[in-house]
Amino acid sequence: MTQQSNLKTSETDVLIIGAGPAGLMAACWLARTGVLFRIVDKRSTKIFAGQADGLQSRTLEVFQSFGFGDRARKNANHFQEMCFWSPNESGDIVRNGRIPDSVPGISRFQQIVMHQGNIEEWITDSITKWSQGQGKVERATLPLKMSVDESLINDTSAYPVSVLVKKLNEDDEAVPEQYGAKVTNGLYRQFDGDQDQFYSDLQDGLLDDTHELIKCKYVIGCDGAHSWVRKQLGIDMIGDTTDLVWGVLDMVPLTNFPDIRNRSAIHSKDAGSIMIIPRERDLVRLYIQLKEVPRMKDTSKSEFGGGDAAVSAKGSTTGRVDRSKITPELIVKNAQEIFKPYTFDITDLDWFTGYQIGQRVSPQFQAYNRIFIAGDACHTHSPKAGQGMNVSMMDTYNLGWKLAHVCKGLAKPEILETYEAERIQVARDLIAFDHKLSRMFSGKPKDEVNKDGVDMLEFKEAFKKGAEFASGTIVDYIPSILEIKEATPDVEIQYYTKLASNIGIGRRLDSSQVMSQADARPYHLADRIPSDGRWRVLNFCGDVAKNAELAAANADFAKYLESKVNFVSNYTPVNARVDSVIEVLTVHASDRHSLEMHDFPQALWPKDSHGRSDYWKIWAGIGSTFHNGDCDIYKFFGIDTNKGCQIVLRPDGHVSHIVPLGAEGIKEIEQFFATFMIPQTKVLDIDITANDTGRFSKPVLAV
Amino acid sequence: MTQQSNLKTSETDVLIIGAGPAGLMAACWLARTGVLFRIVDKRSTKIFAGQADGLQSRTLEVFQSFGFGDRARKNANHFQEMCFWSPNESGDIVRNGRIPDSVPGISRFQQIVMHQGNIEEWITDSITKWSQGQGKVERATLPLKMSVDESLINDTSAYPVSVLVKKLNEDDEAVPEQYGAKVTNGLYRQFDGDQDQFYSDLQDGLLDDTHELIKCKYVIGCDGAHSWVRKQLGIDMIGDTTDLVWGVLDMVPLTNFPDIRNRSAIHSKDAGSIMIIPRERDLVRLYIQLKEVPRMKDTSKSEFGGGDAAVSAKGSTTGRVDRSKITPELIVKNAQEIFKPYTFDITDLDWFTGYQIGQRVSPQFQAYNRIFIAGDACHTHSPKAGQGMNVSMMDTYNLGWKLAHVCKGLAKPEILETYEAERIQVARDLIAFDHKLSRMFSGKPKDEVNKDGVDMLEFKEAFKKGAEFASGTIVDYIPSILEIKEATPDVEIQYYTKLASNIGIGRRLDSSQVMSQADARPYHLADRIPSDGRWRVLNFCGDVAKNAELAAANADFAKYLESKVNFVSNYTPVNARVDSVIEVLTVHASDRHSLEMHDFPQALWPKDSHGRSDYWKIWAGIGSTFHNGDCDIYKFFGIDTNKGCQIVLRPDGHVSHIVPLGAEGIKEIEQFFATFMIPQTKVLDIDITANDTGRFSKPVLAV
Repeated sequence: MTQQSNLKTSETDVLIIGAGPAGLMAACWLARTGVLFRIVDKRSTKIFAGQADGLQSRTLEVFQSFGFGDRARKNANHFQEMCFWSPNESGDIVRNGRIPDSVPGISRFQQIVMHQGNIEEWITDSITKWSQGQGKVERATLPLKMSVDESLINDTSAYPVSVLVKKLNEDDEAVPEQYGAKVTNGLYRQFDGDQDQFYSDLQDGLLDDTHELIKCKYVIGCDGAHSWVRKQLGIDMIGDTTDLVWGVLDMVPLTNFPDIRNRSAIHSKDAGSIMIIPRERDLVRLYIQLKEVPRMKDTSKSEFGGGDAAVSAKGSTTGRVDRSKITPELIVKNAQEIFKPYTFDITDLDWFTGYQIGQRVSPQFQAYNRIFIAGDACHTHSPKAGQGMNVSMMDTYNLGWKLAHVCKGLAKPEILETYEAERIQVARDLIAFDHKLSRMFSGKPKDEVNKDGVDMLEFKEAFKKGAEFASGTIVDYIPSILEIKEATPDVEIQYYTKLASNIGIGRRLDSSQVMSQADARPYHLADRIPSDGRWRVLNFCGDVAKNAELAAANADFAKYLESKVNFVSNYTPVNARVDSVIEVLTVHASDRHSLEMHDFPQALWPKDSHGRSDYWKIWAGIGSTFHNGDCDIYKFFGIDTNKGCQIVLRPDGHVSHIVPLGAEGIKEIEQFFATFMIPQTKVLDIDITANDTGRFSKPVLAV
Repeated sequence: MTQQSNLKTSETDVLIIGAGPAGLMAACWLARTGVLFRIVDKRSTKIFAGQADGLQSRTLEVFQSFGFGDRARKNANHFQEMCFWSPNESGDIVRNGRIPDSVPGISRFQQIVMHQGNIEEWITDSITKWSQGQGKVERATLPLKMSVDESLINDTSAYPVSVLVKKLNEDDEAVPEQYGAKVTNGLYRQFDGDQDQFYSDLQDGLLDDTHELIKCKYVIGCDGAHSWVRKQLGIDMIGDTTDLVWGVLDMVPLTNFPDIRNRSAIHSKDAGSIMIIPRERDLVRLYIQLKEVPRMKDTSKSEFGGGDAAVSAKGSTTGRVDRSKITPELIVKNAQEIFKPYTFDITDLDWFTGYQIGQRVSPQFQAYNRIFIAGDACHTHSPKAGQGMNVSMMDTYNLGWKLAHVCKGLAKPEILETYEAERIQVARDLIAFDHKLSRMFSGKPKDEVNKDGVDMLEFKEAFKKGAEFASGTIVDYIPSILEIKEATPDVEIQYYTKLASNIGIGRRLDSSQVMSQADARPYHLADRIPSDGRWRVLNFCGDVAKNAELAAANADFAKYLESKVNFVSNYTPVNARVDSVIEVLTVHASDRHSLEMHDFPQALWPKDSHGRSDYWKIWAGIGSTFHNGDCDIYKFFGIDTNKGCQIVLRPDGHVSHIVPLGAEGIKEIEQFFATFMIPQTKVLDIDITANDTGRFSKPVLAV
């Protein structure tokens, strides 16, 4: 685009378009790692009610790793039990089963629910904290045009992507009129502004001081199902939409239905299905199948949207839904039929919407390795399994640290290619999962008449199996420069069974309790591995107190770390703290009382420039705590206490590589990092020793 | 005092003088229960470093009950192990024992440490939240004169206490000059202002617009060891002061001493003793015995203060300490001698002070049943057991809800008399405990030469036993109108062994896990009993599913609650929520899956004026959770599942009364409340139904 002489122009490393959960999670990473970024959103207001609400185990692990998992757990409703209801012989609904809602043992956190506005607030607070107030969502800011200077895309210091944005008048342009309604709802939340008009203004040189041209190294499009960024890239969404229409209500129910405070799935005989999602503050969300929905005659185009699965009705054969006819009254009426013989009414209506079930995914999540799309912008589906918001946040949780590494000159841009490769597989699995489940949910139950109906036992089993997938904890990234494993679907082969038989390379590392060698305090290992942008090498050195061979290997490793060039120092800027880029944590398998801190070489708990030792690098993996039961992380991970191993962990907690102790393992780790990390020779222009509290409050990836 | 015509005059229910932990805890209760109060402090600034730091189990239970226990646990350092060091035969210090720092099983929370400024911040935030920003500490506000109109003290609606205060100029008058020093310290923190001068101004009619006369129903003096309020009442402190002088340092240590991150007690051969208190942010606090302290020649008066045990040196025989000579360098020098043969140096000095060990307690904690003193104002001692701040907060935690009940016309003023009776015993026990321990700590270890020295095994045992006392969980209030138990020291007789053999009447109710009948979510019972000013009747109805007799008793109890006059409705204002003053919680002993919510009479989970049922009143006390292990609160409390019982719990969590199920028990509870509660006939002038979110965010004691 031709730059106007008086056009305000600026530069930033990463521009995030869209400040929903996916965009905020990207910003959270960049704030945490100290990367320059901006985040814009065309809406002028935050979300106050409704939208997505489920937080899965893996998402909670990630929240915990950013330091706000406790806020989520404290304020949300916690699911325990899922109940299944279906018609008995008289046609009345009866409870036919209960299962635990989250699979026991799959994570230390179980599914919770809370409205999206709160979730966005926690992430926003974290962004504010780590960016020291600099990283703020720029609301009512509409992207108008994006262009790429292809001659610059191989220059990592260049800003090849330009995005023209316009600051809207918050009172008029950015507020869809429906936001003023008494009860906010999700029926009209798609609002793109009149981009064609702005674009024609641009051509005519009618740009004023509300316009700004932002030059970026990278752009992330987190702008929802109708993604403007995706459209600019000409990327399609592939999939289909069904005729199945569901309504959503957030309210306080008045009912004698026994499981109104349990997550429940109800299949009525003829009136349709309901999913009950009990929420915080006595609210309950109901997903209610709508049997008769008024439709329009024009089938050419649909803007029907809402829920976190808002999709266009393209592909529908019966015409688009007349959204103005979907009212709370209509939804309640459908619910009352399904709940029979139980009574049902509502009070305190908080939010409502309607949606049409469909599953669609983009064939491509990026362009030029410079512009990325994430979340609803590249995958949409039905909301009932509580996946949309979670998978969207995990998209940018995968991308954010990679961008930070590239922006800071720590790693080669090639690592960005793993984003699409890793996440597109997750999206496709999700679509398949949702396709199966949502059709079973919307189907009539099998009986004498409906012989082709849904078998209730099968439905329950599908949910049970689905819970593992839905937890987000078994996501398994494919082999790449970041994942050293065999390209085989045989799970057994992917695992280094001899070294750590319970750890899957490519999966997130699960967590178990360890004890501080220095002060006996028990921690979940994951709580010592926060999301701060650093790589970790977990040095499971084994029972060094009793096994002299292991003790020697450990001493050799410490000597290696003290040598001039090693895989830690090689990638750490000269005057940065020694653990700024790659942190080595040692977990031993000996009796804690049989060892003192000084039995471990100081290189494993290094001193800083003030001479202060880092007491939090040495951990006892086995033993009894005084108040929190026993620890045995060696058994938990399947590591032999007389062999040990070293685990290379990505900044997002996924396992990259597992190697044996000793010189050979060290060489393997050297080779691993050498493929994508950039050796550091530069001296930072900050005095990292000047700030005494730096190590507690500043971004760690201090480069 | 003669009121000046132009003197600003105001009224408040409760005036709190002093905004340290005791004053803030009082304000926290009053904010939580919606009582009008003001809190003033002569200092112009909050505390940024140093002071008290230990939080004991019971204090953490109370913090949890106000909703900020999680902030404490997240940010503080957690103690696990206590280590003991003493000289070996060569005179070098060696570790001779380790014990768990908190007694395992005594509470769900263990001792943690955090500097006082943080602790005050958490309480202040809670005050702000519950008072909706109205309850603010008025700093740089000096009390000048207090008078009592004795003709009004029996009129509960009157304001018999008048306090004249002056707003100081924050820049000059309220800031002791030492606050500007590079490292703040505790050596000079006593600052009273020139009260004599102000008083003479008052006589001369020289009052200006910086003065205000506050008329109060009640005054609480939380103004420290040199309490102005106590002096106004002419109450003495009784006890003595030793010649033992200790220094305190908060810093980051540079040392090869192995237990520098464990709470440790070191007795050196000749150089004195050290207590190590590892803290948050890698800080460590050391209490260091000072062998040679420069003293002044004038023995007539001492203003030596600091730590949370600041005491005057009255009674000292060797002259008062020259405080200007106690420097960090002096303290470090003493420490280095004690640590030998280990090296010791410091960096990041955060705070320091010195104190002289003494134990003193007031013979009286109140006057006129209108003016109360609490915390350091009525008991001071040495700080090393981390008791001062905890016992001080528990003083006002005892007093606050009683004042709220009287101010709101719910209870007779007689309940206020239990404050002194209950807390003076705790203070005396504390003084005795501290007297013994601090002398053992300051003594030389027993050896060939020092045959009268301290036996190290005895010292360790004293600490071990002391830990139970120090936890604050075994405080046992004496028989009174609030405590229905035998006046006997025989613990067995005090307990209702047949009904709940593990519950001590007069003690705080311990907590164990229960499961929500409505949604299977596990909670600690205590987390369903927040400090909100309400009484609880815990209806342990037993195994109602299998035992028809118990089911009948439960139905009868529900019928009683529905009758026109009962012990709940009788003391609840006419249009208040039914559970505003006394909340009935039911804990059954049946298999949760064998019962539905609707098997319990609705009176036990009542509907509100909107028809919304309260799902959080019925709990399963026995059973397996999906992710949090098993529950058996009947076993934990020693309650027979085929007998059950009802427990009457004070708003501060102490057990008042335990009665059998059935008509006789109901009558006992009726009699209990009748002795001090006031039957309510008034209709509130608020429309409690108007605010839908009221039950989640407003003070519950809504009268």
